Amino acid sequence: MKRKEFLKKASIAAVGSSLLVQSCKSEDADSSTGPAIITNKKYKWKLVTTWPPNFPVLGEGCNMLAEWVKTMSGGRMEINVYGGGELVPALESFEAVSSGAVEMGHGAAYYWAGKSPALQFFTTIPFGLNAQQIDSWMYCGGGLELWEENYARFGLVPFPAGNTGVQMAGWFNKEINSIDDFKGLKMRIPGLGGKVLKKAGGTAVLSAGSEIYTNLERGVIDATEWIGPYHDYKMGFHNIAKYYYAPGWHEPGPILDLFVNKRAFDGLAPDLQEIIRTAAYRLNAWATSEFEAKNNFYLSKLINEEGVDVRRFSDDVLAGLKQYSQEVIEEVIAGDEASAKVYESLMKFSKEIRNWSEYSEKLYYNSI
Amino acid sequence: MKRKEFLKKASIAAVGSSLLVQSCKSEDADSSTGPAIITNKKYKWKLVTTWPPNFPVLGEGCNMLAEWVKTMSGGRMEINVYGGGELVPALESFEAVSSGAVEMGHGAAYYWAGKSPALQFFTTIPFGLNAQQIDSWMYCGGGLELWEENYARFGLVPFPAGNTGVQMAGWFNKEINSIDDFKGLKMRIPGLGGKVLKKAGGTAVLSAGSEIYTNLERGVIDATEWIGPYHDYKMGFHNIAKYYYAPGWHEPGPILDLFVNKRAFDGLAPDLQEIIRTAAYRLNAWATSEFEAKNNFYLSKLINEEGVDVRRFSDDVLAGLKQYSQEVIEEVIAGDEASAKVYESLMKFSKEIRNWSEYSEKLYYNSI
Repeated sequence: MKRKEFLKKASIAAVGSSLLVQSCKSEDADSSTGPAIITNKKYKWKLVTTWPPNFPVLGEGCNMLAEWVKTMSGGRMEINVYGGGELVPALESFEAVSSGAVEMGHGAAYYWAGKSPALQFFTTIPFGLNAQQIDSWMYCGGGLELWEENYARFGLVPFPAGNTGVQMAGWFNKEINSIDDFKGLKMRIPGLGGKVLKKAGGTAVLSAGSEIYTNLERGVIDATEWIGPYHDYKMGFHNIAKYYYAPGWHEPGPILDLFVNKRAFDGLAPDLQEIIRTAAYRLNAWATSEFEAKNNFYLSKLINEEGVDVRRFSDDVLAGLKQYSQEVIEEVIAGDEASAKVYESLMKFSKEIRNWSEYSEKLYYNSI
Repeated sequence: MKRKEFLKKASIAAVGSSLLVQSCKSEDADSSTGPAIITNKKYKWKLVTTWPPNFPVLGEGCNMLAEWVKTMSGGRMEINVYGGGELVPALESFEAVSSGAVEMGHGAAYYWAGKSPALQFFTTIPFGLNAQQIDSWMYCGGGLELWEENYARFGLVPFPAGNTGVQMAGWFNKEINSIDDFKGLKMRIPGLGGKVLKKAGGTAVLSAGSEIYTNLERGVIDATEWIGPYHDYKMGFHNIAKYYYAPGWHEPGPILDLFVNKRAFDGLAPDLQEIIRTAAYRLNAWATSEFEAKNNFYLSKLINEEGVDVRRFSDDVLAGLKQYSQEVIEEVIAGDEASAKVYESLMKFSKEIRNWSEYSEKLYYNSI
């Protein structure tokens, strides 16, 4: 059927039905009440990440985000994604976006604790919330508003954009049977986890990702944490470490974030702003799902193909780490009002959601 | 428009709808490859839900989805959201969208088990996956592809769009101390859960949401399940039931879905398709978070203000229910090839992710 012919028939078909008339009419209607006017203005933005280029899940996720935004905007917004060091060094991403040198970054707020200690509470804390719980605090419990307030001081807008889920505690060349076994342990563990290790009598060593393998192999360190089975497998730690401990008490559900220069974001029309916001939600959901799916596959591989000795920390070890974690956090908030405010909100929400978990998620895990 | 009138017109519209879609498509014909070219074409779509209008979380979430889509599309796509019964009866939503009478619906795939038993596996099954796990199966474990395949037979495209999280087992006026206590129990519990109850010697009663309270009050039923503390509180069940049991073994992480008429969806330019897809991801993440946050608040209210006796099923009760659930599911898949295929994928993924949970989520819940 030729186009003209069936357009005519379509309009005849439409006569019989007010439903059709309504939906056809809307195509021509001048709906002036719409929220935004689409302009043809094009944007080419840069997204600097703290990950190696195309890093599994996180780098890949940023590439996907760029595709989603491009498609949703009908090609009006193109985002070029850069691995850490390609445009700016990974840990200068915050500065680069804050200054407006580039428009977007992807990383984790606790990398920027040096700028403001409060920022680390927006990623994860030792013995803190898991992925589902921290999302709930962010989206529906006041967390994101606090994060926006704290990032606004640096001219940034944050969006939750990925979560590793509960990590592993790490790879060890010494058995950890009691809290005392951390004494003298040299471990690669950054952030608050590192401070907890120090309280337990160990030495927290900082190594860039690229140096960890060699340091562990040569005995410069006795242990290292990394992420979970998927990423750890790719690092090859199973070739040089004896024990793989769980759970990742220090990072139980770290949120990764997309951070956008506030002036650049505010300068966008509402449609593009909402496209970026919604794409970040999608990345958050997708990355969490991808970590779960891939970790499960690689854990089996590590156990069944590589014969890895996977162990659980004893209750004694966990109780000791928890006590030291509490002390570390109290020291952080004692010296910083912004931290105290964020921590108060987080703890109130934690207490309540954990009460509910006793009847829902936690109970269910123990019921099947 | 009155319902009867609408249905009559809708069926007329359905006849002409392929013409409409074709004519829409031809106007888009020049947007060939690459990112879409934004046209000023406007759409007014209808979204029929299976919930009462503005139903907490789920109805509210559909309203939000409509706003997100409107904003992201710069006003080019408006979605009018209808509560169950406003345009079509709640449980006729599937038919209405399948036929093209309306473009979108929001509900749960297990409502349509009568159309094809396989569909119920896309929502939840007794002793199945929780929210985080089923999302992972959907997005990264092959679940969504199977769902698309199964919905395509009905001219529909599915999108995960919300999750209640682990529900509660329900409200009971009889104590349940052993699996034998289900004998003779009259309970409002639909779907596979109802079949499990029957195997345990009880009677599964079907009641519309609006009738449950009166039935429980008058002793027509001895027990009812509903959702979780937030929605249950609003129903007022604590005023007429003695015991509130956990966990919701029958619905541990039900996915709600946005289902879209396939011809209508295929007729959209890629930018609007991606906008709808991404908005559904956002709704999925937001609704799960909102359930977690609100359930936790209302559980405290039920316990502390209403003095509700919240109980946990014993291991014996859960073991019995699990055994019957297995029998029920085996009966479903024995008679239906499509069900067997979906169930196989789900079970393979379940086994693997549960192994990982032993070192991650489950272990962490038990470590704090």
